[in-house]
Amino acid sequence: MVIEGVRPEIDCGRFAVKRTVGENIRVEADVFGDSHDVLSAMLLYRRGADGWNEVPMEPLVNDRWRGEFRVTDVGKYVYTIAGWVDRFLTWHRDFKKRVAAAQKVGMDLEIGARLVEAAVERAAGDDARRLSAWVRRLRDPEAARHVEQICEEAELPELMRRYASRDFATTYGRELQVQVDRERARFSAWYELFPRSAAEEPGRHGTLRDVEARLPYVAGMGFDVLYLPPVHPVGLAHRKGKNNAVEAQPDDVGSPWAIGGKEGGHKAIHPDLGTFEDFERLVSAARRHGIEIALDVAFQCSPDHPYVREHPEWFRSRPDGTIQYAENPPKKYQDIYPFDFETDNWRELWEELQSVFLFWIGHGVRIFRVDNPHTKPFGFWQWCIGEIKDKHPDVLFLSEAFTRPKIMYQLAKLGFTQSYTYFAWRNTKAELTEYLTEVTQTEVADFFRPNLWPNTPDILPEMLQVGGRAAFMMRFVLAATLGASYGIYGPPFEHCWSQPREPGSEEYLNSEKYQIHHHNLARPDSLKDFIARVNRIRREHAALKSDHSLRFHPIDNDQLLCYSKRSDDGGEVLIVIVNLDPHHTQSGWVELPLKEFGVPAERAYQMHDLLGGGRFLWNGPKNFVQLDPHVVPAHIFRLRKQVRSERDFEYFL
Amino acid sequence: MVIEGVRPEIDCGRFAVKRTVGENIRVEADVFGDSHDVLSAMLLYRRGADGWNEVPMEPLVNDRWRGEFRVTDVGKYVYTIAGWVDRFLTWHRDFKKRVAAAQKVGMDLEIGARLVEAAVERAAGDDARRLSAWVRRLRDPEAARHVEQICEEAELPELMRRYASRDFATTYGRELQVQVDRERARFSAWYELFPRSAAEEPGRHGTLRDVEARLPYVAGMGFDVLYLPPVHPVGLAHRKGKNNAVEAQPDDVGSPWAIGGKEGGHKAIHPDLGTFEDFERLVSAARRHGIEIALDVAFQCSPDHPYVREHPEWFRSRPDGTIQYAENPPKKYQDIYPFDFETDNWRELWEELQSVFLFWIGHGVRIFRVDNPHTKPFGFWQWCIGEIKDKHPDVLFLSEAFTRPKIMYQLAKLGFTQSYTYFAWRNTKAELTEYLTEVTQTEVADFFRPNLWPNTPDILPEMLQVGGRAAFMMRFVLAATLGASYGIYGPPFEHCWSQPREPGSEEYLNSEKYQIHHHNLARPDSLKDFIARVNRIRREHAALKSDHSLRFHPIDNDQLLCYSKRSDDGGEVLIVIVNLDPHHTQSGWVELPLKEFGVPAERAYQMHDLLGGGRFLWNGPKNFVQLDPHVVPAHIFRLRKQVRSERDFEYFL
Repeated sequence: MVIEGVRPEIDCGRFAVKRTVGENIRVEADVFGDSHDVLSAMLLYRRGADGWNEVPMEPLVNDRWRGEFRVTDVGKYVYTIAGWVDRFLTWHRDFKKRVAAAQKVGMDLEIGARLVEAAVERAAGDDARRLSAWVRRLRDPEAARHVEQICEEAELPELMRRYASRDFATTYGRELQVQVDRERARFSAWYELFPRSAAEEPGRHGTLRDVEARLPYVAGMGFDVLYLPPVHPVGLAHRKGKNNAVEAQPDDVGSPWAIGGKEGGHKAIHPDLGTFEDFERLVSAARRHGIEIALDVAFQCSPDHPYVREHPEWFRSRPDGTIQYAENPPKKYQDIYPFDFETDNWRELWEELQSVFLFWIGHGVRIFRVDNPHTKPFGFWQWCIGEIKDKHPDVLFLSEAFTRPKIMYQLAKLGFTQSYTYFAWRNTKAELTEYLTEVTQTEVADFFRPNLWPNTPDILPEMLQVGGRAAFMMRFVLAATLGASYGIYGPPFEHCWSQPREPGSEEYLNSEKYQIHHHNLARPDSLKDFIARVNRIRREHAALKSDHSLRFHPIDNDQLLCYSKRSDDGGEVLIVIVNLDPHHTQSGWVELPLKEFGVPAERAYQMHDLLGGGRFLWNGPKNFVQLDPHVVPAHIFRLRKQVRSERDFEYFL
Repeated sequence: MVIEGVRPEIDCGRFAVKRTVGENIRVEADVFGDSHDVLSAMLLYRRGADGWNEVPMEPLVNDRWRGEFRVTDVGKYVYTIAGWVDRFLTWHRDFKKRVAAAQKVGMDLEIGARLVEAAVERAAGDDARRLSAWVRRLRDPEAARHVEQICEEAELPELMRRYASRDFATTYGRELQVQVDRERARFSAWYELFPRSAAEEPGRHGTLRDVEARLPYVAGMGFDVLYLPPVHPVGLAHRKGKNNAVEAQPDDVGSPWAIGGKEGGHKAIHPDLGTFEDFERLVSAARRHGIEIALDVAFQCSPDHPYVREHPEWFRSRPDGTIQYAENPPKKYQDIYPFDFETDNWRELWEELQSVFLFWIGHGVRIFRVDNPHTKPFGFWQWCIGEIKDKHPDVLFLSEAFTRPKIMYQLAKLGFTQSYTYFAWRNTKAELTEYLTEVTQTEVADFFRPNLWPNTPDILPEMLQVGGRAAFMMRFVLAATLGASYGIYGPPFEHCWSQPREPGSEEYLNSEKYQIHHHNLARPDSLKDFIARVNRIRREHAALKSDHSLRFHPIDNDQLLCYSKRSDDGGEVLIVIVNLDPHHTQSGWVELPLKEFGVPAERAYQMHDLLGGGRFLWNGPKNFVQLDPHVVPAHIFRLRKQVRSERDFEYFL
C-alpha cells in the first residue's frame, strides 16, 4: 500500500504546521494499493507523549482520502497515517455482487465465516459474542437461502471494520508535527506607541505610569496587544539627533533601538521610563483591560552597552582592534554594534541572548516583537524559540523581517508565531488579491501567520502620504479585515500623520524614533471612534477571527476590492467591499457565489452594513455598490440569508 | 544557509528522476542565507560510485538558483547541492560600493588582503603565486590610490571564487537519484502483431519464421519496436472460443494470455510458433532492420501451466481445495489462475518470476511489455525491476496498467521505463490538452514516460469505430507527434478495422485474441504509406524525439488542435495542426508565439508542411488554416524562420 502526497506537510516534515487551540487539522493523502481490494485508512494523532488517537479517513475521489482532528491544548501534536487492505470488506463487496448476480455462494459463505472467525480472536466481550454468532450464521446450512438479508445487515461490516486485521498495515514514514498556540497567535489587534511620548502634559518625558494611564484609551479602541519599542537605556556614543541627524544635540533622546548605556542593557529599564515595579504594574493593569504587553527584542548594542565592555569577544573586530559597527555599504550605522553570532564564544553569547527573553518572561511578558531576525542566524532562532516554547508554550514571537519572501517564510518555519508582511506596499486590487491569496490560501498558510500593518515608525507608505483621511480609513479596514492579526503605530495613525521627512522618503518627519512628541488624544479629527467600531465588529464576528476562509470576489471596477470571510461552521458570512481610491467615489457590480454562501437563488437576501449601519436588500449574484471615500470608504456587510416573505407570515398557510 | 525546494525531486527523494543518455538535468533550488552576504551554490553530481563533479549554479530571481549537467551513460546518477557564504565576494561587493562612495578604504584593503592570504593556503602552483601577488598588491602603501582599478580587475574574484573557503558549507540533506536509460526509452515507435496471424497464406498458423518474413514490412513503415503478445503454449482448460465464447470449439486456438500447457509455461515457445532457434533468428534479423523485439510478460497461468502442478502453494486455494481462478465479481475468468504474491513461499515465487525476465534476456530480449502490473504488488516490481536494471541497465519495461492515475504513476516511480496512457480515450481538444500537459509539463514528466496507443487488441475506441479512415489518420498523427513514444496494433490499425464485437463494446469483432486472421498486406486502402511518411518525419526531426518541449497554441476552433515541439537547441520548431473532426472540413485562425520561436516580428516566415508537402508564407502571429479530413487531417509544419527578401539578394548592398 502506498500513502503519499500528505497535506499539510512542510518540507517533507522538517517543520511543524501551526494551529491554535480549538482549530481542526484537516489531513489529506493519496492512499492506494496494488489491487482492487477495499482499503481502510486511519489518521493517527497524539499530543506530546500521550498515546495515539485514531480517526477513520474517508475516500474522496481519485484515491484521495481525508480525515480531521481537533487540537485542544497548547503545545506540540504529531500526526501520521496508517492504512491496510481490509480482506473482510473486500469479501463483503464481492459477496454482494455475487448475490446480485444470483451466483452460487456456498463457498463464499465459508470464506467469509473464516474471516469473521479470525476477528473473534481480536475482539472481546459482547463484540466477540456477536461476531461468533455471525460465524454460526454464515455456516448455517440454511444460510444460502438468506444471502440477500446477510448482504443488507449493517452490523457485520460495522463490527468487522473495528476488528480488521492490521497484520499488513502500512504506516506513513513520517510523523508530522503541529505547533498549537493560544488563540492570540491567530487573532490579535496590535497597537504600538512610544512610552516616552505618552506623558499627558507637553514637554515631559513619558513614563511607564503614563502608559498605564493610557490603557483605557487603547482598550477603548479595541486593541488587545500593546507593543512597546525597546524600554532599555539608550546609548550616548554616536547618538542620532532629531530626524536621524548624525550629530545629536545635548537634549536629544536618541533612538530606543540604540540599546544600552551606563545604566544597563537588554535587562534594564531606561531610568526616565520608570522602574521594574512600574513595568509589572503596567503588565497587570493591561491584563485587566484585556490587553497584553508585547516587548521589542532587538539584538544589537549601542557602543555604551555593558556587553561591549564585558564581552568584546561577542563582537567582530576590525584590523585596528576597534569593534565593527553596523553597515550596509556605503551606509554606516556607527551607533550600533551587531553581535558576531559566529564568535568562538557563540555558545555563551547565544545563551545570554536567550536569557533576555527569559528575563522578561519572568516579568510577565508573553509576546515579543523581534527586530530584524533575518540578520541573525536561522540556527539561533530555531534553537532559541524551540527551547523557550518547550518551557513556555504560551509565548508568542512576531518576526519583523522586511526582507525577501523566502527568508520571511523560513523564519516562520523555524518558529516565529506571526510575521510582518508586505501589506504596507500592496495598494492595488491585483497586488492585494495576489499577495493575500498567497499568504492565506497556499501551503504558506500552514506555517506563516501574517500580521498586517498599514504603518510602523519606519514605514509611512506613500498611500498615507497622499491619500488623506480617507486613505487611513481605507487602509485600516483592509488591515483589520483581511488579516485576523494586524497592527497600527499610534497616535500618528489615528491622527493621520502624513508628512515624510523628505519627498520620496517613507520615514516620518520629526519621527518619534528620534524625539519625544506630545499627542492630543482628544483631537476632534481622530480616527479613534472609527477604529473602535471596526475592532468591535472584529470581536463580535467569528468570520474575522481567522484567515483561511478569505476569498476574493469579482467586481467590475479595479478601484473596488471585494472579499468574504466565513465562520468555521459556515453560518456567518461577512463580505467586505473597499474603495481603494481615496479621492473619488467609485461604483461597480459585485458578483457573489450565492450557492457557496447557502443563499437560495430565488429569494432576496439582506446585506447589513456593520460599519455604516445600513441594510440593503439584494437579489441574485450581481448587485450594485457605490462608495464615497469622503463618507466611508468601505462596507463590512453581514449577509443575512433570508428576507421574510409572505410564506413566513404566520397566517400564510 | 538554507537549500530547499529542489526540483526535480520526487516524493522527497524516494524515487529516481528518469532521463536518457545525452539529456540534461536542469536542477533548481531555493538557496539563501540569514544575512546579506554573497552566496555561492554548486550542483554536485556523480555516476554510480565515481567521484563528485561540480557545476556552479547561477541565481535567477527570488532566491532561486539553477544548474545543469548532462548524463552521458546508461545507469544511475545522483546529484545534490552545496552552498556557502563567500566572505571574499561579500567583501568585494561592499568594497566596490565604498569605493564608489569615495569612502576611506585603508582598513578594508587589509581585510581583503587577509581573506586572499587565507586562500593562498588552499591554492597551489601558479594560482597560489597569483593570489600571493594580490596580497602584496592590496597591502601596498600605494594601493589606496588605485582602488578603482582593483575593483575593475576580474582576475581576483575569479581566482577567489575557485578557492573559496568551504569551512561553513551547507549540503542539501538528500542525494537525489537519476535513472539514465538508452534513447529508445524516450523515443520509440511500437508495432504489435499476433505471430500466429502472420502466415503469408490464409489458413495456416503463423510462425516466428513468418514474423521474420514480415520484418521488411514493419521496418518499411518505420517502426523500431516489434511487440509480440505471449509466445508461450496456450492452456486448454476452460479455453475461450472465438469472440471470447465461454466454450471453445476443437479448432479454437485460445488466448495467448492463457499461458501454459503441457508443452511448458513462461519459458517455453508454443510449438506451432517454432523453436528457440527461430526466436533467436528473429531477434537477430530484427536488429538488422533497426527493430527490437519486445516480449509480453503476463504473470498469470492457465490451469494447465506446469507451475500449477509443481507449485500449487503459489496460488490461493478455495475452501474446497481447488485453486482460486481470476475474478472481478460477478465476472469469472476460469481459464486464468493469478499468483498469490503473499504466499508463505513468496520468496521462491518472486525469484521464479524474476527469472522469467532473465530467461528471455538470455535469449536476446531487451524490452518487455508487462501485462497488468497493477494487479501484482508494488514491492515486487520495485525489487524485480531494480535488480534487473542493476545487472542489465539497457533493459526497458513498458507498464500496461490501465488503471487509476496514481497507481499508474506509482508503477512508473517504482521503475517502469514507459507506461500506457489514457490517450485512447482522450478525443476532444480540452481532453488532449489537459492530459498531455499533465504528463509532459508537470513533475509527472520526471518519472512517467507516456507511450500513446490509438488502439490495442483490447481497445478499439469509439472514435475509430465511427470516424472512418480519416479518424485512423488523425489519431495516428496525434499519437506519433504528441508522443515521442507511441504504438499501434496492426495490421488492424493500418487496415482500419472498425467493427466492435457488439454495439457499445470496445472489443474487436472476431478479435485476434481468440482466433487467427489472415491479413492481405497489399490492400490498396492500407495506411502503411501514410504511417511510413509520419515515421520518417519523426526520425528526421529532433523536435519530435522528446516530449518536454510540447506546447499547445490557441486556435479559434475547438475541432482544431495546434501544438509545437522544439529541438533541445531550440533551432528546430515543428508545429502540428490536427483536425479532430473526422467528418467535416474545419478551419480557423491559429496564434503562434513567434518571439519564443525566434521569428522576427516584421518578416514573413515559411511553414513547410512535411506531411502534405506544401509550403506556405505566413506573417505575424495569427494565420488561417483549413483541413479537409478526407484529404489529410493534419499539417506537420516545419517552421523555416526566414523568408528571403531583397536584403538577402546578393546584389542588394
